[in-house]
Amino acid sequence: MTEPTLYPESGFLRLRLDLAYDGTNFSGWGKQPDRRTVQEEVEKALGTVTQSKIDSIVAGRTDAGVHASGQVIHVDVPEGINLEEIGYKLNRILDTDVRVMNISVSPVAFHARFSALRRHYTYKILDANQVISPLHRFDVASWYRPLDIEAMNTASALLLGDHDFAAYCKFREGATTIRQLQKFEWVRDSEGYLIGDVVADAFCYSMVRNLVGAVVCVADGRFGPEWIAETLANKVRISDSLVFPACGLTLRQVDYPSDSELLDRAAKTVARREAQGDE
Amino acid sequence: MTEPTLYPESGFLRLRLDLAYDGTNFSGWGKQPDRRTVQEEVEKALGTVTQSKIDSIVAGRTDAGVHASGQVIHVDVPEGINLEEIGYKLNRILDTDVRVMNISVSPVAFHARFSALRRHYTYKILDANQVISPLHRFDVASWYRPLDIEAMNTASALLLGDHDFAAYCKFREGATTIRQLQKFEWVRDSEGYLIGDVVADAFCYSMVRNLVGAVVCVADGRFGPEWIAETLANKVRISDSLVFPACGLTLRQVDYPSDSELLDRAAKTVARREAQGDE
Repeated sequence: MTEPTLYPESGFLRLRLDLAYDGTNFSGWGKQPDRRTVQEEVEKALGTVTQSKIDSIVAGRTDAGVHASGQVIHVDVPEGINLEEIGYKLNRILDTDVRVMNISVSPVAFHARFSALRRHYTYKILDANQVISPLHRFDVASWYRPLDIEAMNTASALLLGDHDFAAYCKFREGATTIRQLQKFEWVRDSEGYLIGDVVADAFCYSMVRNLVGAVVCVADGRFGPEWIAETLANKVRISDSLVFPACGLTLRQVDYPSDSELLDRAAKTVARREAQGDE
Repeated sequence: MTEPTLYPESGFLRLRLDLAYDGTNFSGWGKQPDRRTVQEEVEKALGTVTQSKIDSIVAGRTDAGVHASGQVIHVDVPEGINLEEIGYKLNRILDTDVRVMNISVSPVAFHARFSALRRHYTYKILDANQVISPLHRFDVASWYRPLDIEAMNTASALLLGDHDFAAYCKFREGATTIRQLQKFEWVRDSEGYLIGDVVADAFCYSMVRNLVGAVVCVADGRFGPEWIAETLANKVRISDSLVFPACGLTLRQVDYPSDSELLDRAAKTVARREAQGDE
């Protein structure tokens, strides 16, 4: 993939698109040969509407089966394109499992990935072997035993802060795994679902699903709370069998600084990437 | 359809099943030739598990495309059947868009339809031409203009009480249209969806969707509030063009009296049906 320049080229306009998708029938965000991916569907639709080849930059590269209610991308499109009905036209072309929720002309310094301050994910669990109601079946994961909300929150709090999350990520060559976990809290909603709110500056590959698995292990009594910190310190990746499924995970929101701070933020992100390896 | 006797036959046990379904790919509850219906799928699965022919009685016969999170049925099954794993087995057989949420042996006087005190429906609308997020796409209806929640509640309150709802039902030969509308209220949830809570002793065919259409007409200023009462009084059915779509409607709950009052309630329902025509 060729990384676009930080600014749009001359004659181009930068657009921010807010997207939502049901990830069930997608092989994730990123393009792959012979797979249905969100990136390919969205870029194809943008290509049709703008009659140009469009490359997008995404805030959070979601895995196969992961959903989004607040994904953000930017694209550079030729100036002079009629922006009036572009959102409406895109939604006419796209299948109903992916929608353009909003579209706007962004400052030239806006970079969906590098300008982002933090990402918010939601993880939903239905515990105690309860049956998932069909209208919720696409974005909830099951757990067979009852989970205590206090125990979940106590275990989650142990992971907050700046850490090398290598033990809780799938390995990727040359990629840093140092992250700042800013929030990791659970509530039980009125219908009995456990809703996890997970916020970090950025996430490594498979990180939320690893963290959820670790917290459930502790809340469930399989490991003591000290196991969380020991695993972090040892940097030995936890067993795949503990990782929670993609279907429970939704990218909910991406935060950006004010327009005047966009460039500064992007510069810092790029500098950190160069110091630590690719984020 | 042959109506079963009020009590189970000798050698049979009465079961109450609580069901939930995504109505999107069903032609409603009631069996029809060459159509996929919830009744047929559930009765077939029950037939496999009990190795008997099973006829079910349902609390609310939902139309094509209407969902349920709290549908109730009763069935009579041969005594001596192993009830331990019947719910689990049914959910293994059924497709994932219909689930048995709970199963229990009910008093012999329990009748899913005639014992019911009232039915609760939810109607969801996203207004102001907003794009429906894909994970919500199956149970929400769209409206192109913004709707004021106060105006919705004011118009809805005009329909409360005992009325002949002929103007707000699809006509059915010999069926009474006298109903008691006990609750009709709207709230806007944290995600901006309008959630209508509609409760009545029972509903006529297509009644909730007619009522929602009427209320939106008034909230929207198309007709004045007096139109609601005039239409009720005139008993001339409102235009099909005003009726809201099935996809926004979910049967949420059915209320029953305590066990000792089941038979009394069923007797009253049957007596009222005979006086007023089939409900």
